[in-house]
Amino acid sequence: MNNHYAFIGLGNMGLPMAKNLLKNGCHLSVFDLVDTAMDELVAHGAVKAESAVAAVDGADVVISMLPAGTHVQQLYLGEQGLQNKLSVNTLVIDCSTIDSHTAKTVGQALAKNNIKFIDAPVSGGVGGAAAGTLTFIVGGDKAHFDMAKPILEHMGKNIFHAGDLGAGQVAKICNNMLLSVLMTATAEAIQMGVDNGLDPKVLSDIMLQSSGRNWTLELYNPCPNVMENVPASKNYQGGFMVDLMKKDLGLAMETASNSKSITPMGALANSLYKMHSAQGHGQLDFSSIFKLFQH
Amino acid sequence: MNNHYAFIGLGNMGLPMAKNLLKNGCHLSVFDLVDTAMDELVAHGAVKAESAVAAVDGADVVISMLPAGTHVQQLYLGEQGLQNKLSVNTLVIDCSTIDSHTAKTVGQALAKNNIKFIDAPVSGGVGGAAAGTLTFIVGGDKAHFDMAKPILEHMGKNIFHAGDLGAGQVAKICNNMLLSVLMTATAEAIQMGVDNGLDPKVLSDIMLQSSGRNWTLELYNPCPNVMENVPASKNYQGGFMVDLMKKDLGLAMETASNSKSITPMGALANSLYKMHSAQGHGQLDFSSIFKLFQH
Amino acid sequence: MNNHYAFIGLGNMGLPMAKNLLKNGCHLSVFDLVDTAMDELVAHGAVKAESAVAAVDGADVVISMLPAGTHVQQLYLGEQGLQNKLSVNTLVIDCSTIDSHTAKTVGQALAKNNIKFIDAPVSGGVGGAAAGTLTFIVGGDKAHFDMAKPILEHMGKNIFHAGDLGAGQVAKICNNMLLSVLMTATAEAIQMGVDNGLDPKVLSDIMLQSSGRNWTLELYNPCPNVMENVPASKNYQGGFMVDLMKKDLGLAMETASNSKSITPMGALANSLYKMHSAQGHGQLDFSSIFKLFQH
Amino acid sequence: MNNHYAFIGLGNMGLPMAKNLLKNGCHLSVFDLVDTAMDELVAHGAVKAESAVAAVDGADVVISMLPAGTHVQQLYLGEQGLQNKLSVNTLVIDCSTIDSHTAKTVGQALAKNNIKFIDAPVSGGVGGAAAGTLTFIVGGDKAHFDMAKPILEHMGKNIFHAGDLGAGQVAKICNNMLLSVLMTATAEAIQMGVDNGLDPKVLSDIMLQSSGRNWTLELYNPCPNVMENVPASKNYQGGFMVDLMKKDLGLAMETASNSKSITPMGALANSLYKMHSAQGHGQLDFSSIFKLFQH
Repeated sequence: MNNHYAFIGLGNMGLPMAKNLLKNGCHLSVFDLVDTAMDELVAHGAVKAESAVAAVDGADVVISMLPAGTHVQQLYLGEQGLQNKLSVNTLVIDCSTIDSHTAKTVGQALAKNNIKFIDAPVSGGVGGAAAGTLTFIVGGDKAHFDMAKPILEHMGKNIFHAGDLGAGQVAKICNNMLLSVLMTATAEAIQMGVDNGLDPKVLSDIMLQSSGRNWTLELYNPCPNVMENVPASKNYQGGFMVDLMKKDLGLAMETASNSKSITPMGALANSLYKMHSAQGHGQLDFSSIFKLFQH
Repeated sequence: MNNHYAFIGLGNMGLPMAKNLLKNGCHLSVFDLVDTAMDELVAHGAVKAESAVAAVDGADVVISMLPAGTHVQQLYLGEQGLQNKLSVNTLVIDCSTIDSHTAKTVGQALAKNNIKFIDAPVSGGVGGAAAGTLTFIVGGDKAHFDMAKPILEHMGKNIFHAGDLGAGQVAKICNNMLLSVLMTATAEAIQMGVDNGLDPKVLSDIMLQSSGRNWTLELYNPCPNVMENVPASKNYQGGFMVDLMKKDLGLAMETASNSKSITPMGALANSLYKMHSAQGHGQLDFSSIFKLFQH
Repeated sequence: MNNHYAFIGLGNMGLPMAKNLLKNGCHLSVFDLVDTAMDELVAHGAVKAESAVAAVDGADVVISMLPAGTHVQQLYLGEQGLQNKLSVNTLVIDCSTIDSHTAKTVGQALAKNNIKFIDAPVSGGVGGAAAGTLTFIVGGDKAHFDMAKPILEHMGKNIFHAGDLGAGQVAKICNNMLLSVLMTATAEAIQMGVDNGLDPKVLSDIMLQSSGRNWTLELYNPCPNVMENVPASKNYQGGFMVDLMKKDLGLAMETASNSKSITPMGALANSLYKMHSAQGHGQLDFSSIFKLFQH
Repeated sequence: MNNHYAFIGLGNMGLPMAKNLLKNGCHLSVFDLVDTAMDELVAHGAVKAESAVAAVDGADVVISMLPAGTHVQQLYLGEQGLQNKLSVNTLVIDCSTIDSHTAKTVGQALAKNNIKFIDAPVSGGVGGAAAGTLTFIVGGDKAHFDMAKPILEHMGKNIFHAGDLGAGQVAKICNNMLLSVLMTATAEAIQMGVDNGLDPKVLSDIMLQSSGRNWTLELYNPCPNVMENVPASKNYQGGFMVDLMKKDLGLAMETASNSKSITPMGALANSLYKMHSAQGHGQLDFSSIFKLFQH
């Protein structure tokens, strides 16, 4: 595997991811529009670049972590895009969560220049990024996936190959759409129990050991004081923000629309999360959807 | 604990449950409107009674397993009801899945005659009843629960105490409402992946190891041929029928209505299962809701 | 037609309805648990009774207007019920909005004593009751309907015969379930227009003249300042309270449950109105559901 | 006003619209990829053009009626686009139903070349197009709207100015989203009545005169044999196809997504129409959603 990496996009997620690469001995050129993030990485051994183009100069692997599809499209295919700057055989790993259509468009355009591209969105949040325990869900050629895997293992724990180009984005968005429904339905079931006099902890335990079992009951109970150290027991601070779930549900609805998929549950969760955000809870953890059912 | 039990209601569930009691050495008087079920149990050592009243004569413990709340109300509080036939201190274990209101009404009426009553609905289906691996979710006094537990362990594996009278019914219906949403949302997420070119098995594996994890992905995948030996891979035969889930969702909606609970997800699942049944799929396993999303 | 009426239940609706009967020259005995309402009617010529039983003494027609099904059942079929007090051939007009099951039960029980019963729920609210412009939606024998019609015309403008016993309740609840959806969907469509830069008045005018036309756009626009003199332009004061719509949607869900009807739209409106009420808006006019879509 | 018009896009809608212009004495150059439609118009006095570019040569007004946003974008802004072929001050009237974003993009691009553009989607279907009774909902400068109005009056009856560029598309899609909910909710309310023994005609009449009144009850009852001459009474043949409503709901969801609008009712209608189409009913009239509630 190669030695010279470029990392572009050093936000809440990108910065700790890049740090983990440096910790694991990778040589890294970094670029972000914000200087302070770059300066912090220089202290860990990174080389600060003046521009994205400068960052990728001589790089064998390029990793990007950007907020939305338009940024990714712009970075690679825009007027000053990397499309024409990258060397043949460079491996591009885009870790942004974007629509699969853009991922495919970028990947296919780069392929024409013999540049390898995989879409590799993550889950696990800022905590997972810092701890190096992210999950990567990858779309693209199996050979490219195999090349990327050891690199991704510097930043994450579970590395999945979901399928061809764009499949990483699709799988992530299917998972997060499902998660939004699990959280909402678990919240409403627990509240219905409480409304009928049950102890939420007792009910949660029963459902966890029965057919209602799901990730939110295991690790992320939305009802305050059922579990310790979850956002629900810390006034819904920390965790995965409502507005980020709203963004993912927006991508899910776009995906469903393009593929003519029928998603009544996802669409309802989308409406409820939008409502919840509109009522001023966009910055709370997404388990705060529990509030919508209290009365 | 006592030795003389009465078992009333020997349908698909009651019959194998009674068998397991006999296997474990219990003395059993049995009654059902259908003779054949009683005859089968006589072969296993049961005493066949002419009526419910005859069956409970001399019994210390009465177990009932009936289709709906009206039957339970009728059995205990009707004109010929057991209310006035049971000895003081008899323990009544009603395993029927009914509304918690009726469970409370019956329990409170029996309490006036110093008869102990717990509501103990089960999950696990016909298979679990035969194997003696049912889950019992019990409402009632802790002391009565403790008396019932060793008896229930002859028929089941997990025995939960959910709370006071009626709490067993509430907890079960919360769980099953949640389950109906898990199944529906998992089905729509998998189909959205398939619509975008993903392999349903690969996507299911990824979600199972991610935050979309839930009981249906673990044990009961709704997409044909992802798992072996689940109804989805056997033309949705066997398992838990759509019309039984529809019944449980009806109870959930009634419960929500009485407690003013807000259950948008459960209500949507209720509509979708009713639609699915109306389209002729009432006898299929409930994972067949997957069909609603195929196109 | 007869001359001696009894009127039982003199709340916000019953009081102005009884006044209109008095204005139209009817002889009225009245009863309510609250004295002041009776006193007010005495000033208009009514006879104040000590009890419901006393009120119906000698009456040919009994009109009742009570909050819920349990009250109606209690009044007619309870221990001190009118069932055994009313003369043969008395015409009972119950104007309460209750479940059709109770309406049928009461009507059938009275029929055994040769007492005529119709269910005649109203729409039009307190304003319509005062103005004598209520709509009555009646279930029961056509002959009984014909007898009641001239009496109801003292209190209302539109008198419909919906069908047999209970049909008045069913038709009213179908209408109000539909209304809740019209209001909610109109609100969300207008807000979507506003979100895209449209003037809500212009958009409302266009939809009113197009296939989106409905009663709310005609008479009751939910967006502030599109229409004068509607609750939306008066901080959602007055009109038909959210909590009353919530009550009607509860009846609709109960009706749907009993008849196995599939009502996804009504169920969603039910969830949204419950949510809206839980957020502290139960006393506002029901067009305030518009707030749920603002952001 | 000018005399020389070009009409591009002569499908089910465009063809009868162009005929009406010819009937009203307009001089028309026409173009479509399908020859037969042009030939039919030549018989009515049109000039057949070899290409879109040829059709607009010398035209003062260009009218287009195309299936989707990509076609409109391609026609005006594509490589061979009319953008650089149209004379300064040409008035472009695009009658296609497309997303408002594309309408704005095209209008703004043409404005740079001093070409006037309005988006003018229609409602009223093939019948309205033939009869010249379409409704036009127009976005763009008021001055351009005023210029277009007499031309549109050759083809339609109601001509609305919804607001700035793109507002025609927004207003139309708000209206049609609302319509889809009216139809679905009316269908479910009528079926709930029927499930409870009511006559659908009687119930429809009552709701039509009550607060459930809406366009579908007035003109387009979804229950068979309640109204004559509507699709519901002709096996759901004719009218406005399910798949066209599905297309419009897709645009509505896209619009909502872009404007962060909260549309739970529209989203549910979208899911139900997709389901209905997936079950093989895409070619039926959209009032056939009634079938989803029958059981």
